[in-house]
Amino acid sequence: MSEKIVIGVDIGGTTIKLGICSSEGELLHTHEGPTGVEDGSDAVCQNIADYARLIIDESPYSWEQVEGVGVGIAGFLDIPNGIVKLSVNLYFNNVPLKDILEEKLQTKVLVNNDANVAALGEAWAGAGRGISDCVCYTLGTGVGGGVIINGKIVEGFRGMAGELGHMSVVPDLEAIQCNCGKMGCLETVSSATGIIRMAKDAVQRGDRTSLSFVPDIMAKDVLDAAKAGDEVAMRIVSRAAFYLGKSMAAVAVILNPQRFIIGGGVSKAGEFLFEQIREVVRKLTPEVAQEGVEIVPAILGNNAGVVGAAGLIIRS
Amino acid sequence: MSEKIVIGVDIGGTTIKLGICSSEGELLHTHEGPTGVEDGSDAVCQNIADYARLIIDESPYSWEQVEGVGVGIAGFLDIPNGIVKLSVNLYFNNVPLKDILEEKLQTKVLVNNDANVAALGEAWAGAGRGISDCVCYTLGTGVGGGVIINGKIVEGFRGMAGELGHMSVVPDLEAIQCNCGKMGCLETVSSATGIIRMAKDAVQRGDRTSLSFVPDIMAKDVLDAAKAGDEVAMRIVSRAAFYLGKSMAAVAVILNPQRFIIGGGVSKAGEFLFEQIREVVRKLTPEVAQEGVEIVPAILGNNAGVVGAAGLIIRS
Repeated sequence: MSEKIVIGVDIGGTTIKLGICSSEGELLHTHEGPTGVEDGSDAVCQNIADYARLIIDESPYSWEQVEGVGVGIAGFLDIPNGIVKLSVNLYFNNVPLKDILEEKLQTKVLVNNDANVAALGEAWAGAGRGISDCVCYTLGTGVGGGVIINGKIVEGFRGMAGELGHMSVVPDLEAIQCNCGKMGCLETVSSATGIIRMAKDAVQRGDRTSLSFVPDIMAKDVLDAAKAGDEVAMRIVSRAAFYLGKSMAAVAVILNPQRFIIGGGVSKAGEFLFEQIREVVRKLTPEVAQEGVEIVPAILGNNAGVVGAAGLIIRS
Repeated sequence: MSEKIVIGVDIGGTTIKLGICSSEGELLHTHEGPTGVEDGSDAVCQNIADYARLIIDESPYSWEQVEGVGVGIAGFLDIPNGIVKLSVNLYFNNVPLKDILEEKLQTKVLVNNDANVAALGEAWAGAGRGISDCVCYTLGTGVGGGVIINGKIVEGFRGMAGELGHMSVVPDLEAIQCNCGKMGCLETVSSATGIIRMAKDAVQRGDRTSLSFVPDIMAKDVLDAAKAGDEVAMRIVSRAAFYLGKSMAAVAVILNPQRFIIGGGVSKAGEFLFEQIREVVRKLTPEVAQEGVEIVPAILGNNAGVVGAAGLIIRS
């Protein structure tokens, strides 16, 4: 076979996932192995290189077909130079990951942060396939994001673009402090953590809700209770949806993307949540900036990371 | 002379302004003539072509040096095809401006909307020179904007990117309706019109302010009164600055631009206004997204349009 392929690497705290993708974003083969954080950053880099060789050996492809290796990693990065300035989970401190891997693998390597990479995966080969401008939200423990313009990740001046969870959307009177130190960030209300906090507050306040009988409230409990008609849970979910929609209305006039893609655990609430978000966006966005704009669920799930990492090579 | 040059055209309702620029954005020569709206769109197009020939004839340059002609125009556009779908001031209705001018001038023509073009002018050859990512606000009758990423205008899916005046930033309780039909847009508080409205409301309410003695309040009166210490005027200006800063804090985490550039009549209030805006951005933006980010005044003034139009050819 002589078709060109790319390798995507998604480095997590415990597992390194790899995927071989076609140049059209089809995930052809996957592999995963332990990150080996405990052995230090040199060992982690060696593991990545070893797994990259291994995934090719296991597959029907050859190393000559590899156009490059893309890597997604959580942390503060110097993206152009592929340096991991700080990755708390991995104990990386000023690791020149791109240079190290290029030497070990003798192929082009590009590094970007995990949220950007997941967004690129969805944009390239997931819910944004065929669309050049899209903005992705990941509603998990926090609210992550990624902005794709003309098919490419917008990185920003210091690589901080796409930090959608830190849009200041909650008005002062209702705002609480975010982990980032600022008040009223989207993440304080629309992440799983935010939803759980609002539910626990309601229970503690003595609001009448079925959530009072849930021992350790998870975001899914709140979403399920809201779907079942629990009024307190409905209010919490509609608040999470309101601020998400409000932030999207802002993005819509700044960038006029064609599609918003929402992934992460909270997005599994499905149409129940999406309809509320769409309603807010309709209400707050001028007609011309919402015409034809879609708000859709992510479809790649956990594969967004490896696919998007591979996409770095194709979409660079 | 054999250096390459580009022509920029800024089509206004009464005057068409043209400029010859070097490929580095230096404005070498200018020309202007009546738009001739009353003679219909064919005549306007002919005028543009005639003026473009004329500006070269007047100048020390020759037509052979012209790399292309960029055109900025207010209205709804099909940017990729250079069609003016609707321009109310010019009575243009589905005018294929790019094709018409390319035939008349036998050179490459690119068309974009006036706010985007002015932003590109500042980014390319004004307050953003040398900076690849910047976001421009124009505080005039409305609040216009333009987003420049990697040195190019972000147009968005339907050409509606950069509509910064229509970010919904004012909370419901204080929001009024914008001309776009939506509630709480930035433009309702931070444009000259918004500032005048707030001042007139205060006078009508009977607030004690020097503005009560101003017969026909202009935005400059309010800004001057605020600088002189009038408390009512100070409150109005700080409200305009607050929502501007709030919108910039959102843009900062979405795009992490290196520089915000503010132009238009209201921006002439200078450091008095800028310091208030910077203070809000500092308060609302996570450290990592504001590090090294600057908020500066536009410098090209009325030339931003012709320079940016010329920039379309260089930065396409």
